[in-house]
Amino acid sequence: MQLGMIGLGRMGANMVARLLDQGHHCVVYDRNADAINTAQQAGAIATSSIAELCAQLTPPRAVWIMVPAAAVDSVIDSLIPELSAGDCVIDGGNSYYKDAIRRAQQLTPLGIDWIDCGTSGGIWGRERGYCLMLGGNDTAIKRLDPIFATLAAPAIPIPPAVGSDTHDSATRGYLHCGANGAGHFVKMVHNGIEYGLMAAYAEGFNLLKHANVGCSNQRIDAETAPLNDPAAYSYEFDLARIAELWRHGSVVSSWLLDLAAIALHHDPDLHTFKPQVADSGEGRWTSIAAIETGTPAPVLTAALFERFQSRGEDQFANQLLAALRHQFGGH
Amino acid sequence: MQLGMIGLGRMGANMVARLLDQGHHCVVYDRNADAINTAQQAGAIATSSIAELCAQLTPPRAVWIMVPAAAVDSVIDSLIPELSAGDCVIDGGNSYYKDAIRRAQQLTPLGIDWIDCGTSGGIWGRERGYCLMLGGNDTAIKRLDPIFATLAAPAIPIPPAVGSDTHDSATRGYLHCGANGAGHFVKMVHNGIEYGLMAAYAEGFNLLKHANVGCSNQRIDAETAPLNDPAAYSYEFDLARIAELWRHGSVVSSWLLDLAAIALHHDPDLHTFKPQVADSGEGRWTSIAAIETGTPAPVLTAALFERFQSRGEDQFANQLLAALRHQFGGH
Amino acid sequence: MQLGMIGLGRMGANMVARLLDQGHHCVVYDRNADAINTAQQAGAIATSSIAELCAQLTPPRAVWIMVPAAAVDSVIDSLIPELSAGDCVIDGGNSYYKDAIRRAQQLTPLGIDWIDCGTSGGIWGRERGYCLMLGGNDTAIKRLDPIFATLAAPAIPIPPAVGSDTHDSATRGYLHCGANGAGHFVKMVHNGIEYGLMAAYAEGFNLLKHANVGCSNQRIDAETAPLNDPAAYSYEFDLARIAELWRHGSVVSSWLLDLAAIALHHDPDLHTFKPQVADSGEGRWTSIAAIETGTPAPVLTAALFERFQSRGEDQFANQLLAALRHQFGGH
Amino acid sequence: MQLGMIGLGRMGANMVARLLDQGHHCVVYDRNADAINTAQQAGAIATSSIAELCAQLTPPRAVWIMVPAAAVDSVIDSLIPELSAGDCVIDGGNSYYKDAIRRAQQLTPLGIDWIDCGTSGGIWGRERGYCLMLGGNDTAIKRLDPIFATLAAPAIPIPPAVGSDTHDSATRGYLHCGANGAGHFVKMVHNGIEYGLMAAYAEGFNLLKHANVGCSNQRIDAETAPLNDPAAYSYEFDLARIAELWRHGSVVSSWLLDLAAIALHHDPDLHTFKPQVADSGEGRWTSIAAIETGTPAPVLTAALFERFQSRGEDQFANQLLAALRHQFGGH
Repeated sequence: MQLGMIGLGRMGANMVARLLDQGHHCVVYDRNADAINTAQQAGAIATSSIAELCAQLTPPRAVWIMVPAAAVDSVIDSLIPELSAGDCVIDGGNSYYKDAIRRAQQLTPLGIDWIDCGTSGGIWGRERGYCLMLGGNDTAIKRLDPIFATLAAPAIPIPPAVGSDTHDSATRGYLHCGANGAGHFVKMVHNGIEYGLMAAYAEGFNLLKHANVGCSNQRIDAETAPLNDPAAYSYEFDLARIAELWRHGSVVSSWLLDLAAIALHHDPDLHTFKPQVADSGEGRWTSIAAIETGTPAPVLTAALFERFQSRGEDQFANQLLAALRHQFGGH
Repeated sequence: MQLGMIGLGRMGANMVARLLDQGHHCVVYDRNADAINTAQQAGAIATSSIAELCAQLTPPRAVWIMVPAAAVDSVIDSLIPELSAGDCVIDGGNSYYKDAIRRAQQLTPLGIDWIDCGTSGGIWGRERGYCLMLGGNDTAIKRLDPIFATLAAPAIPIPPAVGSDTHDSATRGYLHCGANGAGHFVKMVHNGIEYGLMAAYAEGFNLLKHANVGCSNQRIDAETAPLNDPAAYSYEFDLARIAELWRHGSVVSSWLLDLAAIALHHDPDLHTFKPQVADSGEGRWTSIAAIETGTPAPVLTAALFERFQSRGEDQFANQLLAALRHQFGGH
Repeated sequence: MQLGMIGLGRMGANMVARLLDQGHHCVVYDRNADAINTAQQAGAIATSSIAELCAQLTPPRAVWIMVPAAAVDSVIDSLIPELSAGDCVIDGGNSYYKDAIRRAQQLTPLGIDWIDCGTSGGIWGRERGYCLMLGGNDTAIKRLDPIFATLAAPAIPIPPAVGSDTHDSATRGYLHCGANGAGHFVKMVHNGIEYGLMAAYAEGFNLLKHANVGCSNQRIDAETAPLNDPAAYSYEFDLARIAELWRHGSVVSSWLLDLAAIALHHDPDLHTFKPQVADSGEGRWTSIAAIETGTPAPVLTAALFERFQSRGEDQFANQLLAALRHQFGGH
Repeated sequence: MQLGMIGLGRMGANMVARLLDQGHHCVVYDRNADAINTAQQAGAIATSSIAELCAQLTPPRAVWIMVPAAAVDSVIDSLIPELSAGDCVIDGGNSYYKDAIRRAQQLTPLGIDWIDCGTSGGIWGRERGYCLMLGGNDTAIKRLDPIFATLAAPAIPIPPAVGSDTHDSATRGYLHCGANGAGHFVKMVHNGIEYGLMAAYAEGFNLLKHANVGCSNQRIDAETAPLNDPAAYSYEFDLARIAELWRHGSVVSSWLLDLAAIALHHDPDLHTFKPQVADSGEGRWTSIAAIETGTPAPVLTAALFERFQSRGEDQFANQLLAALRHQFGGH
């Protein structure tokens, strides 16, 4: 079927390519002309404005927005005058679910359907199929089923877990999770979990890396915690081989571990990576939702704070700790 | 080849079954006669004491210990008089790696090899293959390669990650990680990571469960945090379907998520499970190792403390908090 | 000077008593007639409605609101028709600072000043003096200086810290912290810190309480972490005496420790307190502010989550952990 | 009475000065000749070796060790041949309590008493009086009461908390906490609490410092979490004045806050302090004791890990996180 796509970054461009491959028709727009050209060469219809994109689509239109969270509202403002009752707008990016609720409230009176679609899979989704978490009304989501089915279709089907309904679209990678906001809520929690999983591996491999601290000389002064048993910390582990090992039969095997193995095989000391880690919003929103609902989430939130710390946001706190130690101990 | 197995609990019994299936010879002992009978019916040679087990094995013997961590030393004490130089003892259980180092120091002067083997895979290892993390000397580990290869052999081979050496035994589920203690060190960290991963999923699904708190009436008093936006928390999510969904194409897909999907399909409210969670040592040792080496591990340690809290070990702390609130606020 | 007080709970009633003692005039209202009678007997002018309270005050009026956070907006709605330009409303309760900003924006166009006043001191403030954190415009705050000075006046003056300006009102317990919202922002962070401090003591005393675990028999099975060194955990500490001890010369002496000593002297096992701990909003808002600004706050947030856990909000998470352990380990 | 002091660093030198001021006799030794000279000028008897120090003391001797934890065992080895039955050795430093138990077991068969004395107060103890936590046998501790009483005597007595026994030495700053190890156990937990308290203030002030992030321009891209409400984060707080304010009547007033106020008055931006924070052992041991006893201590342990992070020990973990993000997202 026909889909308009606004935003041809890493994610949007790959999704268009997947849809075109399976015979769908895509009308595309991006602020970057090169991105438009690439999509056009792959078979998409290029447009030079949001208005033109809407004009090229046959009503009832379906327009997918795939832009940074902070840019969604301005895209919607451009869309509204170009759309009609019966059209549908899908936000496939990492938006805050409360914004999805607000945007649905903005569009519903105009007769425009709003679908919030949490999209997981990253740059691998092109090949592996995307995992889609959908919020909105049933009619709109059913109408666009061919699009969701194509975007989610797995390269290699994964058998449903024991007990699953094999007719459930969830077993094919997409699911209508609930009313508007539900898609981005589920995606938010998904990413919160992702932060926790990533941090668990990162802390574990970092500990394996520190397993040789007993080989260094230890300082003896009142400011340094003594290492009681240095001989017990004299291992030099091969982290890439351990990551590989755990992929085979262990309880911690996962897709993220697969990626860790690739990364460690390629660059065992990870010299090419700076130790600063970005966060793009969902981890924050997950912890905020946990706090607002009174749900304990110490692991997910610790993972989030580690990212802030990696970027030096703890600097003043540490200076105050040093100042206090100086005050009471003369350190 | 021939292997003696001491301990026929869930893990030991399954490992014997796997070895027998592949043509190895097993001599077995357990304190429980029923467990011995079952193994005998599957083709193992039954014995009624550790001494008899050793007598039945042809030197150089290989004896695998698969008992609770707290029982290993007494098994070793029973073994020592029955073994000779050139024999090998393998501890496949969840022992502390510092104990592995100590035990190797105890056995080496007697000419007995010691292998510490971290074993992951749980009750699924029988079918899926175990993941084995080995510490010890190269000669002993090489000699027992047929045993390790059989225990680890996957039902369905998993392709090595890009960049992996396809000849590496790690790609078949077992690895010589380093000198004595290394096997249990790597297993310890593995389980520390496992606690973190499990907690990340548990917190995430718990948050999805709390996504309906806006549907309840909110209390208005000075002791209760107000929920600013109850309408934003009115989702009733189907957790089993979401677990299933995430298995297909998402960044958080993993073997633990597969298990979560099975569990949630079978009992969506998990009524059959009490909210008390045991911990069997490795999570503790991981956090202790992190602390001793000065490695930050807030996520792994938060996951550990959640288990302590699930068992009510925070009770007095919470009573003191309540007492302090009463003191200053008259609450 | 003259002040209207709406809300005669523990805090409001004590503040009125303090003001009356020092010669101020108070006009009071509460939904509870008994509370009004008590204040009247102490010298306040009683009224039976917010309208009557406003009518009794001489313009430019000053009306202090001391009610639960969730009730402030309805009080403001009742106040607006009764007030005139030049009047001032003070919110002395534990409101969200973003609400303070919103309320200031609501009242400013009417010519009504809004002061957000974070109030610390609890039921001890009556005697000890309250600590007041003020947000609003300078003129309004200066006009009400006599009120703030009286509420904050210490029973026993605390010498300013070395380097402090002795003329600063901060040295007498009140401070104009910034524009509207600043008072409640500083109070929010204050309470966030309070949660962290309380949790630090609670965890420490709980650990002292657990210092005797080596005296119990330890279970030996694969589900229980072994205690390596039980003799090292055979202390029976007298927590009340230790709390008292630390009050004298130690680095951890504090007002909260004073309260802990009183509580432990009075009820050493704290039998009279249930292990469920309420949270009234500021701890949540502190962690949310930390997250929104990208500031790491793992300690403050862990303290918050401990309170959620004390109330059983981790139950489903723990059931899922138990279910996962059952899935992979047959536990 | 007479006391030998080994170790004249900041702490030992001040303690000698306090004892001499109150008429006690001190025989001193340190590896640093200048430190010995200074003590000699204040009235101490100088010696040039541990043997000479022991020779100068009248049996039954009392020898106080005030050296880094990692140096205590070598001092004890030097002492043993010089001491006799009936003598007493006190370790006043920050040693691990399990070492105290071991050392007591080493000295008891020789008839030498061992007292482990946790000492709090830092460089302020000289004036303010030290807080002493004592472990050992009752006879030895009673014999040295004059020493402990002098070291602990407050400059300004602090009234006992309501309910305290006014005859208890705890009300004068020293306490026999239990058998050997008890003194250092209580000191260990004390310092664990101290880390938690310090971190609570540090995180809170750091958040106040971040309250102006809304004034900076926000980046708009898929890698940056958007700040929804920048106007709500436009405060420029005066942290020194807020620290001062909280000292007067607030729930968070404490001795550490007094020190924070001094530090912030002196250097509001703390430019003179590097953001790396040392840890000297007790915080680690506290968390390890919590883990070994199954006691949840997320706040105290988070405070410890923040110190490790301040020293860059999270670097590899963060590189792995960055590598994983690159793998799945192409970031």
